[in-house]
This record gives sequence, structure tokens and C-alpha cells, in this order.
Amino acid sequence: MAQSLAGPEIERLIQLLARLPGLGPRSARRAVLHLMRKREDLLAPLGEAMRVAAERIATCSTCGNLDTADPCMVCRDPKRDNSIIVVVENVGDLWALERAGALRAAYHVLGATLSPFDGVGPEDLALPKLVERVSTGQVREVILALNANVEGQTTAHYITDLLAPSGVKVTRLAHGVPVGGELDYLDEGTLSAAMLSRTTL
Amino acid sequence: MAQSLAGPEIERLIQLLARLPGLGPRSARRAVLHLMRKREDLLAPLGEAMRVAAERIATCSTCGNLDTADPCMVCRDPKRDNSIIVVVENVGDLWALERAGALRAAYHVLGATLSPFDGVGPEDLALPKLVERVSTGQVREVILALNANVEGQTTAHYITDLLAPSGVKVTRLAHGVPVGGELDYLDEGTLSAAMLSRTTL
Repeated sequence: MAQSLAGPEIERLIQLLARLPGLGPRSARRAVLHLMRKREDLLAPLGEAMRVAAERIATCSTCGNLDTADPCMVCRDPKRDNSIIVVVENVGDLWALERAGALRAAYHVLGATLSPFDGVGPEDLALPKLVERVSTGQVREVILALNANVEGQTTAHYITDLLAPSGVKVTRLAHGVPVGGELDYLDEGTLSAAMLSRTTL
Repeated sequence: MAQSLAGPEIERLIQLLARLPGLGPRSARRAVLHLMRKREDLLAPLGEAMRVAAERIATCSTCGNLDTADPCMVCRDPKRDNSIIVVVENVGDLWALERAGALRAAYHVLGATLSPFDGVGPEDLALPKLVERVSTGQVREVILALNANVEGQTTAHYITDLLAPSGVKVTRLAHGVPVGGELDYLDEGTLSAAMLSRTTL
């Protein structure tokens, strides 16, 4: 956009919005035009919601989730089975599992997965807190819900070894054919895993 | 997303962001996760930029552009040829023409185009101000840069009639083959127009 087109405040808004995932410079401009038209309905409330969120969002000191309260809403939920801890890499994975809604358990957000090439070692993961939570003796299962890639699997092995002394049961998500997936489009690794873990009908 | 997943402040942020064009509930969630991770770098500045914009954005009392100053940056620009007024439907069209940069002239934002079916009549368009600007005698040309659809063309005819008494020259954008466009994919109307307006090489 030409420099002289709109005031610096609008330019700044476009530049900041363009940094959101899924928005580029073009869609950020379109979003700002929309916001300018809906000044009272959307622009002002959104600014206020962001200010409040920026002020209040904190990392849950128990599980590492991000929320406006500590402990977070998941840790405070009295209906959850706190004897199961689902270990995830990040908050996005936690949200995805919650949307799936298969299990109402506790979570533990690592913040990263082991990646020697990127210089991410065990000290960069929220592991001491996980060991501490397991050591209370209240936990009967730790489910490793990590990505099925090299980093995720390396991290899974590391955590399995780390928790071995505690005697807690450690499990991982099943591999297999995605629901709705077509065999023809799946890689050999997934197909082999699905075949080996076949279930009786 | 499950109701119990994150605090109401985060839910509200997701819902507001999902109302931006180009973002749905899913990408709004992803954007909020990104914002939560970049609290200091992005979330807080964006909230502040929106607050400032919501406070300062005003409609330019001369041309109808939206800006944080009145008159707007376009009307204040001393390098523009103010004897030409480019009439556009909305601010998005003004920005698009400015990006093209073919002509540094003044603008006039109508705010809408005539659409009897939607109950949009001449009284809903910023026409009196346009007539007033033309009547100063400082304007030698009015370019109608309106969409090439029924509403745009109806509006163009209406404005042409409206400005006829002033004797000002009224023009419209050329029709033709878009630059980079392939003839095979163009509609007959565009091809006919391009043929009739052919230029000598």
C-alpha cells in the first residue's frame, strides 16, 4: 500500500494484523477495512478483548496451559479424572484433544519436543513438573499425545525412560487409518501400523 | 470448542476474531493461540492499535474516506491534482486504486451504489457533497470508478445526469481484457468491449 494512503495508526494496525497466522498483507488490509466500518461493533470490543487478554493470560503453574486464571479452567474442573495426565507439546494440541472430547483427564503441556538439530534439549521442556505431579502417587496413567514425527517420538521415548522409576503406566495414542481416510492415500508406515494393531470385529 | 476449555475472556476473543473476513472459528482459534504465545510482542500492541484506531478513525468530511484525521491524508496531500475527482463506492476501492497508482487525484466515496432491490436510493449516497465539490468550478473531470455490474452502472448513469448541468467532464474506467488475462476465460461482454475499444499499435 502507498505510504501516504492512511494515517500511521491504520498502517500499524494492518502490519500487526498481517502477522497473524492465516492473514497476509492483503487479507489484513481487508480485515482493517471491515474493522473500520464496524468501529463500534467490532473494532472497539476487539481492542478491549485483546487488552484484557494480554493483561490476564498466564501460564497455569500446574499443567502449563494458557488461561486467564491460574490454575487454569482445565485444572480447576472438578469433573475431570486427575489420575490420568495427557502429555501434549503445546496448548493448540490440548485444545484439539478437548474438541475431540474422548477423555476428560488432566493435561501437561511440555512447551516443546526434543529436537537436537534445533538445540531443544530436555531442559527446555516442562519435565520436572511432570515428574513431580506423577510422584504424588495420585496418577495411574500418563498418555503421551505427541506428534507422530521424529521429535514427538524421541520425546515419547525420553519421557517413558524418565517416568520408569515411578512405575506409572505410560501409554501413547494409537496409530492407524484416520477416520474417513482412504487407504490409497495413506503412507506405508500408517498402513503397517494399522495392520499390526488390527482389532477384532 | 468446549465451553470449559479456556476462560470467558479467551472465548470472547476467539468469537470476535472469527467475525473478521477471511477468518472462521478454526483460524480464529489458531490466531488466538498465536496471540497468547506472543503476548508482549503482538497481543498487547494489537489491542492498543485497535483501541487507538477505534478512538480516532473518522469519516473525512470532504471525500468520505476513513482515516485518523479529517481532512484525510489523501485530501491533505499537496501533490495531488484536485481538479480530478475519482468517484468510488467504498474505501476498499479507493485503496485498490491507490495501490494501482495510475493517477494521483482526489476521491469521492459514495458509501454505496444504487440498488432498488436492496432499498438503496440516491439519498443513501454521498451525492450532495459531490455536487457541491464540483460546483466550486475547480473540478475539470469526474472519473466514475464504479464496479462494472448493474448497480455500478446504474449509479454511473445517475451521477452523469446529476452532474450534466455543471458542464464538468464525466468519464468512466475503460472496459477490456485484464492484464495477464487469457481470452479463453473471459466473458463475451468483456471481449466485445475490448474489441470495440481496441487501440492502434
